[in-house]
This record gives sequence, C-alpha cells and structure tokens, in this order.
Amino acid sequence: MAESDLKPEVKALVFDVFGTVVDWRNSIAREVEAVARVKGWAVDPYEFADRWRAKYQPSMEPVRRGEKPYVRLDDLHRTSLLALLEEFGLDPLPADELEHLNRAWHRLDPWPDCVPGLTRLKKRFILATMSNGNVALMVNMAKHAGLPWDTILGAEPARNYKPVPTVYLTGADWLGLRPEEVMMTAAHNGDLRAARDLGFRTAFILRPDEYGPNQTKDLKAEEAWDQVVGGMEELADRLGC
Amino acid sequence: MAESDLKPEVKALVFDVFGTVVDWRNSIAREVEAVARVKGWAVDPYEFADRWRAKYQPSMEPVRRGEKPYVRLDDLHRTSLLALLEEFGLDPLPADELEHLNRAWHRLDPWPDCVPGLTRLKKRFILATMSNGNVALMVNMAKHAGLPWDTILGAEPARNYKPVPTVYLTGADWLGLRPEEVMMTAAHNGDLRAARDLGFRTAFILRPDEYGPNQTKDLKAEEAWDQVVGGMEELADRLGC
Repeated sequence: MAESDLKPEVKALVFDVFGTVVDWRNSIAREVEAVARVKGWAVDPYEFADRWRAKYQPSMEPVRRGEKPYVRLDDLHRTSLLALLEEFGLDPLPADELEHLNRAWHRLDPWPDCVPGLTRLKKRFILATMSNGNVALMVNMAKHAGLPWDTILGAEPARNYKPVPTVYLTGADWLGLRPEEVMMTAAHNGDLRAARDLGFRTAFILRPDEYGPNQTKDLKAEEAWDQVVGGMEELADRLGC
Repeated sequence: MAESDLKPEVKALVFDVFGTVVDWRNSIAREVEAVARVKGWAVDPYEFADRWRAKYQPSMEPVRRGEKPYVRLDDLHRTSLLALLEEFGLDPLPADELEHLNRAWHRLDPWPDCVPGLTRLKKRFILATMSNGNVALMVNMAKHAGLPWDTILGAEPARNYKPVPTVYLTGADWLGLRPEEVMMTAAHNGDLRAARDLGFRTAFILRPDEYGPNQTKDLKAEEAWDQVVGGMEELADRLGC
C-alpha cells in the first residue's frame, strides 16, 4: 500500500518494545556480567540472558489461557529469575540485589535508530507502547532510554498479555481510535498478525540481531505488512515525518 | 518541610490537569465564541463555559457513589453539553459539530508556566496526569499543548473519579511506587486533601484566575501542603530542577 493511501487515516503508532525498540539481549547480558563479576559467578552472560528470555512466553501462558489472574511482567520476570539461579546452581541473592537484577528489564538500551526516529514520528503521530511490560517497567525504561512515548498502553491496562485481542483493543479504545487508525509496529510477525486480524495497520521493523548471531526467526516480513523497514528512521521517512 | 528532606523520596509528580495545568475557561469560551459566530448564537461564551463546567462535578457523582458504572469524561461532557444547548434555547447541533465542540476539552491551552516548568521537572521526575479526564482527552490535549507527560494515569485506569481513593492509589500502584514517593500537584485544596489522606506528598499551585475574575475558592493554600507555589517553574525551582 502506498504511503499516501495510508497516511490520512493513521493517527497513532503503537509499539512492541522488547526487541523492537530496545536491545534486551545485550542490555541484560551486560547487567548479568556486572553481577557475575561481583559474585564470582561462572556463567556466560549471553546464555543467562537467553535462558531468562526463554521463560518469557511460557510464563504468560497461564494468564492468556485464563488459568491464572493477571500478574505483572515484573513478577513473572522475578519468578523466572529465581528458577534460573537454581538451574545455574547459583546461591540465592539477597532481596535488594535480586530486585536490582530483576529491574535490569527497566534499564534496557534502545536500538540506535529509535530515539531519533521516534522523535520525528512523535511530531505527527500519537506514540504509545503496546508491550507486555507493565507500566512501571515501561515508564522507567523510557526515562532511562529517552523514549518519547505519549502514553503507556498494552498488558497492564487490559490485565492480559499479547497476543490476546483485548490487549490491542483496549489500547485503541483508550486512545478513542478505531483499530484501522492505529499502526502496530513490531519486529515480530506473530504480533503483527494478531493486530492485523483485529483491523490494525502494521509496520514490520527488521531486527535480525535481536537474538544474537544465531537468530532463526523474524528474519523477514512473512506477510505484506503495510510497512516493512529497517528501523524507526526509515519508518519516519516512509510516513513523511 | 525543607526541599532537601523531601527530594530523596519523591520519584514521581502526578498532576491535576483542568485548572492546574490548562486554562479551561478561556479555552472553552474561545471555542464557544467561534461556534456562536457561525451559528448566530446570542450567548456569552464565558457564561457558557462556566455553566458547562458547573455540570462537571455533579455529572461524576453517580459513578463515585457506585450508582452508575464508569463512563468516560468525554461522554459526561457530551451529556452536559446537550443539556446546556437546551437550557440556552439553542437548536441541536449536527453530530459532527457536536463532537467537535465536545472535543474542545481536548484542545485546552496550558497556563504559560506549564510547558517550561514541566520540561524542567521531567528531567528529574516521572510526570503523569492524575486527572478525571479520559486517556484520549489527556493524550490529545498533550499533543495540542505540548505537555511532556511520561504517561497518563487517573480516572480511566481506575474506572472511577477523584476524589475516590482508588484513582490515586491505582496511579501509584501502576508506577510501582508507594504514595509517599508520589507528589500530587493541584490547584485545588480538596484534591490535595484526598491525596494526602492516602499518604501522597502534595504541591499546591495557586491559580486565582481559573474561574475568572470572580473566583471565590482555592484562592490560597488551606493546609500546610509540602509545596505552595505560583506555577510550575517555581515548583521546578523548589525541587532543585
């Protein structure tokens, strides 16, 4: 679809965050490495980051299936971290150190194109997160990384996790917009598929390094998304910002 | 309380918006005047603005008392506007014109100190709205007025209206903060009283012109609030920003 067909209708861009906007893998590995140095842990910080992230999708499943009430991602991250320390055979951390490491997810660094690209996009569009991260996580990350969101939407307002429809739909509803006025922006084909099924516009951001050198998924756009770009500055170019 | 006692604990400032951050009376009167000119209405735009605003508190009461489920302020504003047109003996407006006038509340102008003051405060603190306005209203107003919020809290997340405690408490909870880490900022003593009763810090912003030349209430701080200032730049000075 040509940009000129699209532009008059889109009022807001909503963003997946982990992987799409911020580089969780290098950021978490850096924080794990710092803790490992102090504690004398013999762990590969990238393996630790990957295995922590590997618990992410399964940890949300009971909530998505309605078997457990909504709990925040901070709490799921903490449960995963405790299990991971045990799996690595590491001694439990004191509560304050555990909390500091768990909040490494609040201190993720953006991909280099994000702050300049989002700053341009913000002049024309409403920008909101549409992440499974909770509000405090998203707000603290935005302060750390300089991300210029207009507001935080996503999991916590809907008390559920993507790709459950209510997460996307609650976000559009709170903005007072129809789904077709909102562009879901993500580095993950599955996220875009769920949003498109509900009527959202879609933008795919290619992030071939999200999972490091051996990434096997989301290496290309798997459908004809409305926009397919290499980063936020290219998205700003395409949308005439 | 000295600023140095307070500063280490406060992580976020949350703001009442109508009257505290934006000048609803002059903004609404300007929009009413523009419609009146086109429609040939013989109305005093300031009287129209004041009488529209006078319906604000009563319109939220059934929700606060639990007699009606939460509906957004946009909807309450529309109901009030329809009643007002009838009270003034004016013909009903076509749907699109009614909606445009109702959304005048999305286009309120800030007091002159707000954008510079909030921009300074944002460097040190999380800034969020704690308004009875719904999310779309707050986001659109922020785009119109250039207000640099980190996120939107308040009525819609809690599905109730201030001064019901859940509105303040849901906001602090979503930020992952205890009430004493959050400073409620308002031009209204009653709003601050409700927040202080829950443990929030308080800042009173003097807005003696909110209701025009004949304002009778909130002309002074009625309690020893943590900060009492004449505007957001003075608040930034006091908090060392």
